[in-house]
Amino acid sequence: MDNFPSDIAIAQNTKMLHIKEIAEKINIPEESLEYYGKYKAKLPLELQSSNPTGKLILVTAMSPTKYGEGKTTMAIGLTDGLNCTEKNAIAVLREPSLGPVFGLKGGAAGGGYAQVLPMEDINLHFTGDFSAIEKANNLLSALIDNNLQNKKYSLELDPKTIAWKRVMDMNDRSLRKIIIGIGEKNGTLREDGFNITPASEVMAILCLSKDFEDLKFRLGNILIGKNKDGKPVFAKDLKAVGAMAVLLKDAIKPNLVQTIEKNPAILHGGPFASIAQGTNSAIATKIGLSLGDYVVTEAGFGADLGAEKFFHIKCQQTGLKPDAVVLVATLRAIKHHGGLTAAEFKTENVAAIEKGFANLEKHIENIQKFGINPIVCINAFPDDSQNEYNKLIALCALKGVTAVVSTAFAHGGKGSIDLAQVVVDEINNENSNYKPLYQPSDSIENKINTIAKEIYGASSVEYSSTAKMQLKEIIEFGFNNFAICMAKTPASFSENEKLIGRPSDFKITVREFEIASGAQFIIPLLGDVMRMPGLPSVPNAEQIDIDNNGVISGLS
Amino acid sequence: MDNFPSDIAIAQNTKMLHIKEIAEKINIPEESLEYYGKYKAKLPLELQSSNPTGKLILVTAMSPTKYGEGKTTMAIGLTDGLNCTEKNAIAVLREPSLGPVFGLKGGAAGGGYAQVLPMEDINLHFTGDFSAIEKANNLLSALIDNNLQNKKYSLELDPKTIAWKRVMDMNDRSLRKIIIGIGEKNGTLREDGFNITPASEVMAILCLSKDFEDLKFRLGNILIGKNKDGKPVFAKDLKAVGAMAVLLKDAIKPNLVQTIEKNPAILHGGPFASIAQGTNSAIATKIGLSLGDYVVTEAGFGADLGAEKFFHIKCQQTGLKPDAVVLVATLRAIKHHGGLTAAEFKTENVAAIEKGFANLEKHIENIQKFGINPIVCINAFPDDSQNEYNKLIALCALKGVTAVVSTAFAHGGKGSIDLAQVVVDEINNENSNYKPLYQPSDSIENKINTIAKEIYGASSVEYSSTAKMQLKEIIEFGFNNFAICMAKTPASFSENEKLIGRPSDFKITVREFEIASGAQFIIPLLGDVMRMPGLPSVPNAEQIDIDNNGVISGLS
Repeated sequence: MDNFPSDIAIAQNTKMLHIKEIAEKINIPEESLEYYGKYKAKLPLELQSSNPTGKLILVTAMSPTKYGEGKTTMAIGLTDGLNCTEKNAIAVLREPSLGPVFGLKGGAAGGGYAQVLPMEDINLHFTGDFSAIEKANNLLSALIDNNLQNKKYSLELDPKTIAWKRVMDMNDRSLRKIIIGIGEKNGTLREDGFNITPASEVMAILCLSKDFEDLKFRLGNILIGKNKDGKPVFAKDLKAVGAMAVLLKDAIKPNLVQTIEKNPAILHGGPFASIAQGTNSAIATKIGLSLGDYVVTEAGFGADLGAEKFFHIKCQQTGLKPDAVVLVATLRAIKHHGGLTAAEFKTENVAAIEKGFANLEKHIENIQKFGINPIVCINAFPDDSQNEYNKLIALCALKGVTAVVSTAFAHGGKGSIDLAQVVVDEINNENSNYKPLYQPSDSIENKINTIAKEIYGASSVEYSSTAKMQLKEIIEFGFNNFAICMAKTPASFSENEKLIGRPSDFKITVREFEIASGAQFIIPLLGDVMRMPGLPSVPNAEQIDIDNNGVISGLS
Repeated sequence: MDNFPSDIAIAQNTKMLHIKEIAEKINIPEESLEYYGKYKAKLPLELQSSNPTGKLILVTAMSPTKYGEGKTTMAIGLTDGLNCTEKNAIAVLREPSLGPVFGLKGGAAGGGYAQVLPMEDINLHFTGDFSAIEKANNLLSALIDNNLQNKKYSLELDPKTIAWKRVMDMNDRSLRKIIIGIGEKNGTLREDGFNITPASEVMAILCLSKDFEDLKFRLGNILIGKNKDGKPVFAKDLKAVGAMAVLLKDAIKPNLVQTIEKNPAILHGGPFASIAQGTNSAIATKIGLSLGDYVVTEAGFGADLGAEKFFHIKCQQTGLKPDAVVLVATLRAIKHHGGLTAAEFKTENVAAIEKGFANLEKHIENIQKFGINPIVCINAFPDDSQNEYNKLIALCALKGVTAVVSTAFAHGGKGSIDLAQVVVDEINNENSNYKPLYQPSDSIENKINTIAKEIYGASSVEYSSTAKMQLKEIIEFGFNNFAICMAKTPASFSENEKLIGRPSDFKITVREFEIASGAQFIIPLLGDVMRMPGLPSVPNAEQIDIDNNGVISGLS
């Protein structure tokens, strides 16, 4: 692949259609479009039909490795593949965060010939949604600190209990832990910190809201902290809801763009997969299902986190039902879970495939527990061996699962036609019978138990003394019916990222709980969770440039 | 005025034209427009002609009071007034900051029947320019802190010398002074702080840049701090320029909107008037002068700061030349400078007008020193008395200056027709012969002396020992030819806001210097400068709401 062009080169060499032509393909009238330049448009919430008829395809993955499994690329490729076979398919995906663009990882708009465009805009400020979410989050912070020093209208907040952090969409480790309010006239001295914007509960809320009313209801229910009597204080107590919602008036509208093959893609929202649901907005998904016959969407991390949260949080809260699940795998990820190191990936090793399959197998079984038989999509890399493909396909067949190679990165939609046909067949067979593994009314501990044992394969769940105390408070505050949003390493089914493959006989420990009462979920923390990345020694920012004609280089 | 509708009611009851119709009026081809919805568009830099023929009208004011003199309202009214008399006039103004919208002050898009629309969008995120500037500023901060902890590629920055602050477009006093980098893996512990986004040097730079090349040159020259040998370290040393410029790729393009009377208005940039030049971008002004016969623009604070900086910083750095100056006054501001309190404003008091005129008189004389005879615009209020008007007009006439009452707030353009005719006559007479009072090559001290004595009427300038030391360094670093950007209270010609009217026999003291080497000016601080406002006890945020149909209330 030495001569294979860079993502930005492919993107810049693609002539885009005016976004109104993309809209026409899915019957959006021009007057409904709110243009942001020629290649982006916001879509009105009214495009949601009350009874959408599209089929929902979730793209998820085996336990991810640092080499990248290409879930977004596969989702875009599948969308283009479906369109190649004359299906009306729309990709509905997350918007990327700005932070990683300047760090190590680069952008997140697909790769190779399976990208969404305009790549530069999507990876930069796009239509301002993240900035709006950031402002709404930080307005609440400013109102909290303003109230702390307000003698007349005090809510008697106990500063030590304030759980609401400020956010910035930037990889900036220096802001993780800070002291604010230093100096006589500068508010109340206290510890605070900045998370990256996708980690804001406002992001999680926006992506779970059905409409403005639901958005405001959820914003109002954000738990800020406790007052001096130990009672919970919410954003609505600060009268913050209207102003926060006003800041989100445009951000709540999904964004229409196009794939390299000029098929429609709706990008909207981007909550972290670690401490939130890790998938695009419910409104975007519903608009997609109202306009297209097939919607291809994805959820962050592996299926143990992404798909589980998709099913239990997004589907349960918003009434969505998946019709098919695509599990992305790569030979190198299988080999990693089979115990090989990167240096060994290029050598054919069928035994390692057999060993590493254990990881994928567990994900297959998990999806089957939800009543859906997944389709495995093998994201092709140049050095892949046919013998390894054959082995993997055979192993999947033993689980009753079809595995298909996709070359969408190199060939776009044409490279995903086989996958598209298998997916359509699966949907036409109406085999999918999605059911959640837990009910909201189950106890918090039972819900955690279900996820830990059924999905992760853990033998038991333990709770730190802090977690036990918090659990009491969660029930006391009336949050028992909330969903569970696990914060666990994606690298392993367990909480120990070194336990690759399909670990067994392990326990997990809930170290601490966080409450996202606006998003309506409880977050059990199983380990350290990164909420604000840092920049590497040589940040990608140093490579990025723009010439006098406005042509950007160095984005990846 | 009890029954006079609120600004937002007037705005929401105005049917706007599609922005392409506004563009047509000034011959912008539709393909040049980058739409942001139906009522906003970004304009390409190519609309600047090499030899623009429009006439430039600067709207400035007497020393401002807390009651508000309505400079922006008068500028919009004059634009509409000119259009009422069949002139092709464009308002070219600053974009408002988000912070004050949620504080006490409310928005800043004019008032009454002299507003720019869509009012809600302009006062909220608008087209994302402020967010982009914020990100570019904060990316530089993240790169600075990343370098501080970088052993391999260290610039050996001395953390104590770092002058670059983070910014946020929010009234948030708790962030004024903070400690960052707390914790083992979270960078280098140091003091930092957040300014409000309009106070970012990136904002000042964007608004002074001619094109992308100039923007990048200036961004590169931002002084970050000093290394351990006391040598200056610049943004270009951090390789931050390309990435910062990429973040500003859209923000550099001016924004077209419309007045209530459907005349074109270009809003672009909004640097603080206190520590920066306080006026919209040079690119926007030049595009205005390329498309319109008349451009009405404004500069923050009174003429001693706004007009002086407009002439010495903006005009000198970008080659612009004003053709007319409008000095806004109100009877109540004159009375304030005549020693009356608010309770006394409503009672006719011609003697107080005579006394308070001293303030306006000094501003008139100052503008005349720049070779331009100003026109005084009296912004009418409901309780104004005709005798007071007559007195004020007569006093102006004694200085050779025409004073005209404008009722643009109540009547829009029709209320500014008289003013428009006087302005056009003044321009047709070609009396304006703009010349600066100092040359870039003058010494820093001489430049400060010129402003202090000629404009403020000070008897002498003193320097603190800190300022004296900094002055040496400024010369050593090669910054002698930079302009001066005074940071002084706008409430008085002196540095003491209590010295109203026309004080004399006062000295000013330069307490400290700041260096804006990207914006190419030196900032002498004469007192405490507010760079991050706070929220009041009852923030305006509490009143703001949005209903389920997206209709906003409570913005002002």
